[in-house]
Amino acid sequence: MITSIHNLSIQTVRKLLAQSKARREQGKFVIEGVRLSEEALHAGWTARLVLFTDKLDARGQAVLDGFTARGVPSEQVSDVVMHAISHTETPQGILAVLTIKPKPLPPLPHFLLILDGIRDPGNLGTILRTAAAAGVQGVLLAPGCADAWSPKVVRAGMGAHFRLPIECLGWQELEHTLTQSGSSLHVFLADSSAGIAYTQADFRPPLALIVGGEATGAGSESLSMAEAKVHIPMPGGSESLNAAVAASILLFEVQRQRSQG
Amino acid sequence: MITSIHNLSIQTVRKLLAQSKARREQGKFVIEGVRLSEEALHAGWTARLVLFTDKLDARGQAVLDGFTARGVPSEQVSDVVMHAISHTETPQGILAVLTIKPKPLPPLPHFLLILDGIRDPGNLGTILRTAAAAGVQGVLLAPGCADAWSPKVVRAGMGAHFRLPIECLGWQELEHTLTQSGSSLHVFLADSSAGIAYTQADFRPPLALIVGGEATGAGSESLSMAEAKVHIPMPGGSESLNAAVAASILLFEVQRQRSQG
Repeated sequence: MITSIHNLSIQTVRKLLAQSKARREQGKFVIEGVRLSEEALHAGWTARLVLFTDKLDARGQAVLDGFTARGVPSEQVSDVVMHAISHTETPQGILAVLTIKPKPLPPLPHFLLILDGIRDPGNLGTILRTAAAAGVQGVLLAPGCADAWSPKVVRAGMGAHFRLPIECLGWQELEHTLTQSGSSLHVFLADSSAGIAYTQADFRPPLALIVGGEATGAGSESLSMAEAKVHIPMPGGSESLNAAVAASILLFEVQRQRSQG
Repeated sequence: MITSIHNLSIQTVRKLLAQSKARREQGKFVIEGVRLSEEALHAGWTARLVLFTDKLDARGQAVLDGFTARGVPSEQVSDVVMHAISHTETPQGILAVLTIKPKPLPPLPHFLLILDGIRDPGNLGTILRTAAAAGVQGVLLAPGCADAWSPKVVRAGMGAHFRLPIECLGWQELEHTLTQSGSSLHVFLADSSAGIAYTQADFRPPLALIVGGEATGAGSESLSMAEAKVHIPMPGGSESLNAAVAASILLFEVQRQRSQG
């Protein structure tokens, strides 16, 4: 049992939790808790290490056994060590190091989401969760977004990371990806007030929707990529919506229009 | 200039920021920053005290002058004191103590939101912000919600508190309020999977929508009050949506249906 936070595995996990650079260089990230570990296991994600404590409940034990059966190394750690590394207030006794390898984009997508400057990790995670629920086929993160694999984003994502293709791209790669995905993708840009009302837009043909951050909105690259702007009319006279809220309303409007034929 | 955090005014402000009980007993709450103070001033809210530092920019100074012109007492405090009491990372040099006195409900509302067990302050604030934007005429908070006047909720609300009738009620009061508001209010309950699809519901007649918290959902009181359950179909196969996201999708569907006649 590991009882020291100076243990090498523990130091590695702490770095992966704390540093975006470490996650990028090692191509790994960390998930915490029974529910996320269960989702990762069932989605067939590659785990590199599982840490657990004797606080593990039956469901958590089953997840641990599942990873072990696949040959994933595991180590028991003391409660003190788990508390020291955990980013959650009440650790559930299981934590896994996974390889960052999201699902690939489908060859001819008809529903993509592009995020530009979504800096708040909670908002980014919530958007990923909503995108997965709304049937989005891939999320492309432009420069300036929070790290999708940070603990806060992963926690707010509630498992979306395992179901959703997620790609962090430069602007050139992003345009390339869109072109490859079929030139017939209509690119809409969510704006706080300009363009047509979102309920008037035709979201049934294949599309990519760009949503920008709240503070600065979408940047010039997004503006040049977009064919049309859409906005959400606000009868209450507010200035703006939370970025995750705006994204959610638009993504589910796409679904609503498409499900009605 | 106040330079000690032991000053009586400072102690009072700290209590109002930290304790729901103090806010309830004194009927006051605290807002921070130029933007919220500006909104409060323009909405004509009663301020009891304004604290400021020499960090105040021109826009902040104008807000301070506006409050002073209305006879609101103000006190300059040191940066150290402002940092010590502020709940934001970079205080903008202005903070105001306001009387809790939200706008009253309209006599015959046609669009109310009832929240049941929304415990996360960020979610509650985001829902209030969205409700104000969507033209909701009043938000009724059932027992078990976070305190609507806490710093986190107020910050996430982005000024919704000044535009939106907000009432914290017991269950009996809540039912009484609904009955008084006209027996013709249809009461819908948002469910994660039961009931009809939200796009199939008729949201054009006067309605109250109940949204429950993520962890436990709506309670038995909500269930007995509701006439119909609605859910948001999730083609991506997710289990649930963030409570603020679910509320936002439903509130803007009401607006969409109503704006289309």
